[in-house]
Amino acid sequence: MKISIIGAGNVATNLALAFKKAGHEIVQIYNRSDDAGKELARTVAATFTSDASEILDADVYILAVKDDVIAEIAEQLKLHYKIVVHTSGTNSKDLLATSSSNFGIFYPLQTMKKNSKVDFKNVPILVEGNNQATVLKLEALAKTISQNVHRVDEEQRKWIHVAAVFANNFTNHLYTVSESILLGHGLPFDILKPLIYRSIENMQHNSPAELQTGPAVRGDMQTIEKHLMLLGDDARLKKIYEILTQSIIATATQNHK
Amino acid sequence: MKISIIGAGNVATNLALAFKKAGHEIVQIYNRSDDAGKELARTVAATFTSDASEILDADVYILAVKDDVIAEIAEQLKLHYKIVVHTSGTNSKDLLATSSSNFGIFYPLQTMKKNSKVDFKNVPILVEGNNQATVLKLEALAKTISQNVHRVDEEQRKWIHVAAVFANNFTNHLYTVSESILLGHGLPFDILKPLIYRSIENMQHNSPAELQTGPAVRGDMQTIEKHLMLLGDDARLKKIYEILTQSIIATATQNHK
Repeated sequence: MKISIIGAGNVATNLALAFKKAGHEIVQIYNRSDDAGKELARTVAATFTSDASEILDADVYILAVKDDVIAEIAEQLKLHYKIVVHTSGTNSKDLLATSSSNFGIFYPLQTMKKNSKVDFKNVPILVEGNNQATVLKLEALAKTISQNVHRVDEEQRKWIHVAAVFANNFTNHLYTVSESILLGHGLPFDILKPLIYRSIENMQHNSPAELQTGPAVRGDMQTIEKHLMLLGDDARLKKIYEILTQSIIATATQNHK
Repeated sequence: MKISIIGAGNVATNLALAFKKAGHEIVQIYNRSDDAGKELARTVAATFTSDASEILDADVYILAVKDDVIAEIAEQLKLHYKIVVHTSGTNSKDLLATSSSNFGIFYPLQTMKKNSKVDFKNVPILVEGNNQATVLKLEALAKTISQNVHRVDEEQRKWIHVAAVFANNFTNHLYTVSESILLGHGLPFDILKPLIYRSIENMQHNSPAELQTGPAVRGDMQTIEKHLMLLGDDARLKKIYEILTQSIIATATQNHK
């Protein structure tokens, strides 16, 4: 396919490289600031423009820009019937209705950084389209770079995004909290890594719901009290401890009903 | 060394197997209920007793029992100067002072199940003793099964236990929450696993504090509001979302000061 990329950030860069590698032609990089866009265009042998009126013909336009500028950029694009997608987890595809009669979502569910190339083979790619033909084309395109392609609807994509915040952003914060507790007492975070890795490994074959351990799920109120005493000075950590402990207990109670 | 194990649960079983494999002699399994204890004794070619007055001579006694019965069992043991340890993350070694003049802690920092054998090589083992000779002997014993042995004090061990609750029990609960959100909308938890694995991999070379992503650390209040609206019906998940989002924002603000 002939693909144009709008944007030159982490997602734009990683997708452009993956499409190029899969044999697609990258027609053009459109980016409002010159430097990053020109570099990406050079890397994938595409032309470059920073002017919306100079946009060339392509089969699919990938709008990989920050959430808060999607609508604004979409309004400048006049792509008629050519497929245009954005790559956001939370925004509606309807933001693109002003650009073309065929539009959708191409959302790779992975953390991306410019300088560390993503191997898309196992990255889930969620696709949506405003009509069946668009969905099929986007699905076919996604399958050229990943074996893990899912058709979703707008509602599902929103819930996946929330679920990812719990499973990725919030867990990372708990690792951060844990590290700061250890460093504060002269201990390296490395001491917990075997335990963390083992638990993640166990999740390959078991539901996390079956793997819950610790004082809360055992109903070990004595240990919970000791931990809250120890955290006594730190209202923020104490609150996190209490809320998550309550939620584990509530979940266990529900499961045993 | 000649080692006796008191208990026949997950930790007792895994430690007995690891000591046996490392060439130690398992003298005896002491357990108050017969069945599990006899089976473990057979497996590691040890004698078995359920009677505290029949306890045989050994160099080290490992009390691997539930936290709430440590004190009670310790009071029945008259080991004089032989080393006795318990394997709890939260209880004081002083609970053992009635059993012997040499006592301590032998705490393997890993989730254990009876039916899946733990490879102790990389499992952190935390040791404490009430005197220097005891610490040295316990350290030497720990090193026969693990390359990851740490001398700690009581205060540090308590903090490690709290840190493990955040990094292991609480993260597992967030994976559970995430899974239940997805299942509730017809989506498999597998869809998030590549993201989860990648984030854990990134932690091998970076501090989690540097890896924080998501709406909270970006200060993206629009997305946070959308997520809270979506969770609207579920007070429990909304509370977790709010508390962790606030904590991420507070941590980011602190780091930028």
